[in-house]
Amino acid sequence: MPQLRKDPVVGRWVIISTERGKRPNHSPKRNDSTRSGPCPFCEGNEQTTPPEISAYRPGGSKPNMPGWTLRVVPNKFPALMIEGDLDRRGEGLYDLMNGLGAHEVIIETPKHEANIGVLSEKEFEDVLWAYRDRILDLRKDKRFRYILIFKNQGAEAGATLEHTHSQLIALPIVPSNVIEELKGAAVYYKYKERCIYCDIVRQEIEERQRVVSENDHFLVICPFAPRFPFETWILPKQHSPFFEHASKQEYVHLARSLRETLMRLNRALNDPPFNYIIHSNPLEEAANGHYHWHVEIMPKLTQVAGFEWGTGFYINPVTPEDSAQALRELAL
Amino acid sequence: MPQLRKDPVVGRWVIISTERGKRPNHSPKRNDSTRSGPCPFCEGNEQTTPPEISAYRPGGSKPNMPGWTLRVVPNKFPALMIEGDLDRRGEGLYDLMNGLGAHEVIIETPKHEANIGVLSEKEFEDVLWAYRDRILDLRKDKRFRYILIFKNQGAEAGATLEHTHSQLIALPIVPSNVIEELKGAAVYYKYKERCIYCDIVRQEIEERQRVVSENDHFLVICPFAPRFPFETWILPKQHSPFFEHASKQEYVHLARSLRETLMRLNRALNDPPFNYIIHSNPLEEAANGHYHWHVEIMPKLTQVAGFEWGTGFYINPVTPEDSAQALRELAL
Repeated sequence: MPQLRKDPVVGRWVIISTERGKRPNHSPKRNDSTRSGPCPFCEGNEQTTPPEISAYRPGGSKPNMPGWTLRVVPNKFPALMIEGDLDRRGEGLYDLMNGLGAHEVIIETPKHEANIGVLSEKEFEDVLWAYRDRILDLRKDKRFRYILIFKNQGAEAGATLEHTHSQLIALPIVPSNVIEELKGAAVYYKYKERCIYCDIVRQEIEERQRVVSENDHFLVICPFAPRFPFETWILPKQHSPFFEHASKQEYVHLARSLRETLMRLNRALNDPPFNYIIHSNPLEEAANGHYHWHVEIMPKLTQVAGFEWGTGFYINPVTPEDSAQALRELAL
Repeated sequence: MPQLRKDPVVGRWVIISTERGKRPNHSPKRNDSTRSGPCPFCEGNEQTTPPEISAYRPGGSKPNMPGWTLRVVPNKFPALMIEGDLDRRGEGLYDLMNGLGAHEVIIETPKHEANIGVLSEKEFEDVLWAYRDRILDLRKDKRFRYILIFKNQGAEAGATLEHTHSQLIALPIVPSNVIEELKGAAVYYKYKERCIYCDIVRQEIEERQRVVSENDHFLVICPFAPRFPFETWILPKQHSPFFEHASKQEYVHLARSLRETLMRLNRALNDPPFNYIIHSNPLEEAANGHYHWHVEIMPKLTQVAGFEWGTGFYINPVTPEDSAQALRELAL
């Protein structure tokens, strides 16, 4: 059973999951491109994944058979286990609990594509609907307090399989960075009685120098204090704490913004490895909170982040004004 | 001029330093081992670095000439600039200041060694004395609030030059992870009236399962909730907030602990890339605080840290009990 352990000083929860060490590609300095054998995410290889949780099957084909356009399966080497009790306990001054949670994979296309950027706008929309469907299903389970949705593209960004996919982790705790964002937003709200992200949207639209693009519902910016070169955020213009409460029109526009932004990053940086993460409110908080959901995209361009890991202190050689301009001025 | 910019939500300061982009090895996915030209850190090439700040010259040779055993020079591509005023200011809701600070390189040996593990105990002691000397000198400058000392070994850990060296960054702000540790230690102290790190030392010595080694002055452990496989901490047994206030005997014993621990990691993991960071108190805090300085060593074994960057949420496939046992049982 994996464990969730809490650092007693800074309160950061860590998953200790020895199961994850058993992944076929998991070795120090692995090279994922050398992986052999059929791709478990390709159409026709449905039997090589655990049984599917859900799938979009426009022709009405049977589960775990070909005929799907998008498929959600449990992670074969899950960091967390869905069965059991949390059993929160102490060991002297330390705190831990069972590593309970869901770890799912969203396979974004039946075709063996390494780059999500090749998907159509409609396919991007379906990816977003799948995220939402899974969140709405999992939030019924009262053991969970946070659902993390993220994508690793490229081995350097942590992807162990090439075929484009996203991941979902449902957690019985709230990750420390989310807590920090919530606290920061609350402090600002208390002082100003306004949402800090709404104020960022307003200021960025006025100044324009860090704007990459915008449409009716979303603003794409390189943030004022980016940790990484070409870090890019997609912010909804309409205030809402929860990704899963967005309207149909918002998903349509987010699909456009996300697809176009990834195309810009691919064009500008020659298909960089990247991570994107959906930042949404913890499940149990009141819906009318001061948090403002958004998407953060981090291309992984440099190894400069050596000591940044350990210090929370970042050195970025590219200004967001320069990266925004480069992305904005690209002809698509 | 580089800038220090603050993320308005989480309060994290970031250095935006376009100078750093000009480093000869700095390119996406660079391979540092292919660097050409003479090594600027080797004896005989003193003219290729900026003029030295200090050096240990047992034979009394002249500055910027051969004959040294350890040398401290300004970083040729500094992330921060030593001259000027902070000029704290706002831009709408954002905060920034000039990127003022010191960025120095400690060249640990005149020989072209890629691995600090080959140095003698005496040479390790000198490295620690050099760290201390530089801190004591720089803390006279009242613009600085924190001094960060760290080492990147191996390209995957962020080293841009192979020749073994450490870095020092003096900052006009306190990094966010340091603030978190200070807060966590203060909360515990308020509740227990004891130092949390002292309690960790006590519990680990009693339980032994995460102990790698110990001597009169230091305990080496794999921490209870490690972010990375084989993450290892060196904790002084004697409570003290400041690294630079350690006694001569403590430096002698730390040199032994650090050297032996790096040798163990080299042996167990086949000379892994790693970072180590000295965690010490901010400069201006009262010396009798609840913080407890220590060293954190993080081997960089996996790319699993893709999304961990963005979430502060870590998945570690190796338990600290297993890594401590593996390191402890090695014959050196």
